[in-house]
Amino acid sequence: MAEEEFSPTDVVLARRRIQNHILKTPLIFSHALSKLLKLPVYLKMECWQLTGSFKVRGAFSWILNFLESHEQGPLVTASSGNHGIALSYAVFTLGNSLKVRVYSPESAEACKVQKMRELKAEVVLKGKTFLEAYDSAMEYVKERDSFYVHSHAHPWTIAGQGTIALEILEDLPSLERIIVPIGGGGLISGISSVIKALSPKVEVIGVEPEAAPGAFLSLRDGVPRERIELRPTIADGLSGGFSPLPFRISHNLIDRVVLVSEEEIMEAMRVFEREEQVIVEGAAAVTLAALLFKKVNPEKKKTVLVLTGRNISAEKFNLIMAGGQNA
Amino acid sequence: MAEEEFSPTDVVLARRRIQNHILKTPLIFSHALSKLLKLPVYLKMECWQLTGSFKVRGAFSWILNFLESHEQGPLVTASSGNHGIALSYAVFTLGNSLKVRVYSPESAEACKVQKMRELKAEVVLKGKTFLEAYDSAMEYVKERDSFYVHSHAHPWTIAGQGTIALEILEDLPSLERIIVPIGGGGLISGISSVIKALSPKVEVIGVEPEAAPGAFLSLRDGVPRERIELRPTIADGLSGGFSPLPFRISHNLIDRVVLVSEEEIMEAMRVFEREEQVIVEGAAAVTLAALLFKKVNPEKKKTVLVLTGRNISAEKFNLIMAGGQNA
Repeated sequence: MAEEEFSPTDVVLARRRIQNHILKTPLIFSHALSKLLKLPVYLKMECWQLTGSFKVRGAFSWILNFLESHEQGPLVTASSGNHGIALSYAVFTLGNSLKVRVYSPESAEACKVQKMRELKAEVVLKGKTFLEAYDSAMEYVKERDSFYVHSHAHPWTIAGQGTIALEILEDLPSLERIIVPIGGGGLISGISSVIKALSPKVEVIGVEPEAAPGAFLSLRDGVPRERIELRPTIADGLSGGFSPLPFRISHNLIDRVVLVSEEEIMEAMRVFEREEQVIVEGAAAVTLAALLFKKVNPEKKKTVLVLTGRNISAEKFNLIMAGGQNA
Repeated sequence: MAEEEFSPTDVVLARRRIQNHILKTPLIFSHALSKLLKLPVYLKMECWQLTGSFKVRGAFSWILNFLESHEQGPLVTASSGNHGIALSYAVFTLGNSLKVRVYSPESAEACKVQKMRELKAEVVLKGKTFLEAYDSAMEYVKERDSFYVHSHAHPWTIAGQGTIALEILEDLPSLERIIVPIGGGGLISGISSVIKALSPKVEVIGVEPEAAPGAFLSLRDGVPRERIELRPTIADGLSGGFSPLPFRISHNLIDRVVLVSEEEIMEAMRVFEREEQVIVEGAAAVTLAALLFKKVNPEKKKTVLVLTGRNISAEKFNLIMAGGQNA
């Protein structure tokens, strides 16, 4: 598959490749949140996925394609953590001896770094933001005989993330709206391509932290904004710009991108704990924040929130639950 | 089915009845806990089950049997909460108009009471302990034309809970040890009957809080100890004695019952948050507490912990995570 080609059919093929390696996570009707928000709310529990985030779908899709191409050699990537964990886990689980080197920003979430190391990844903390870590990773790849595994801007990865949409359509064919966190754009590219191909009336809404509005600016300007100014955010997994390939795939498929503040994200995390007894990381909570704080229309559409992960350090989580800030 | 008959085959039939109504929860290999405990640890994630606990299995099994018998009439039960939530959920989900009346002790976990009420149950807070709530419920049933739905000492319920063991055997046929929380004994009866029938070499260990040692005393004395003195415990779901039917089914199948203290349970809850980013209630955490505090042999057996639920109020959870006591 050439780097820049992608079609929704690739998602169907990705599902066949990865389905014995990942969980089909449940889509849960939330009685509590539906009552609170006065509209039917369903939760796609990718926070219960293996490795603690949806990224394991894209990672298995990438690596299984890679191995089918008979490629070998050390793998290098840049990641705020979840993609790094997922890639290390996929290599580990397949019993493969490929080396995995992950560049993460110095501010990377401690529990994510710990999980990568538990899974034998070599973690290099480099730079203040994801983009700086990314540049270091690319520099390393240019100098060494190795393969860069893109966390979001590669068709194999995007096809893996899109499998979430196939599962949701199976479980709730009558959904009317889906709310998706946006970081680099891999997840929303995969999901929107499947949803708009199979069920075009479903509204696709993306959410970003105000601190990393890459897709918001890209859709406003009509060009991908990958190199944006990033401020620290509790939604560390979403800290990045919107890459060109995700932009090309999804800019005509996303109905709207909305922004949420740090306090709104943390309040949504508290509501998830109180109403559903689940730990979600900031990146996942942006979806509920958008509804709670009326960034999207509160009409009574059957609404699916994609909860992308649960990897957050206990210390940080406890501080947020106590009402404190730590972003 | 007569009240007192039960065979492991009933579990297979229960599975057929309930499987489209519940989740097949994942059995997860925990890299972090395996490293910490230096033995292979697998987690059966019933804390991710619908309604937030495994009790929904027994509840669906009971109600579907009941409806197949063409019975009708108001349902009454006693429950510390999870069984009450599960029964209300099952009735609600089946679109049935049966009334559900739940007697819970006055100290019942606030989030459990809230969930029962969200699901239209009539909740009566009565008595200091489960046994007192149970007596009130039985009194009510004697005076009214209604059906008592036993939370653990009924073959239909036990058959439902036993389906957990079938799922575990499918996912990890090579397991060597299973550690199960014991409250009234419904769960361990169902699980031990399946495990010892199909895979008799697997060691079955039950865990209770020191504050409610019903099964421990029953196995020591060779008679069911249902009416025991109960002290308050953070594992509120385990606060009860060991009933005669569970005793008859399981007393020759359980290899050992061990006891854990309140502080040990709370420390296990903190370890689950820190290492796996999951909220578990006290009843589920007794399993890890038994391993962490060497109540069971730390030999390198493939060990499955049955994590029974996640229903705990945010306030109480946060207090425990902060190191405080609230039992």
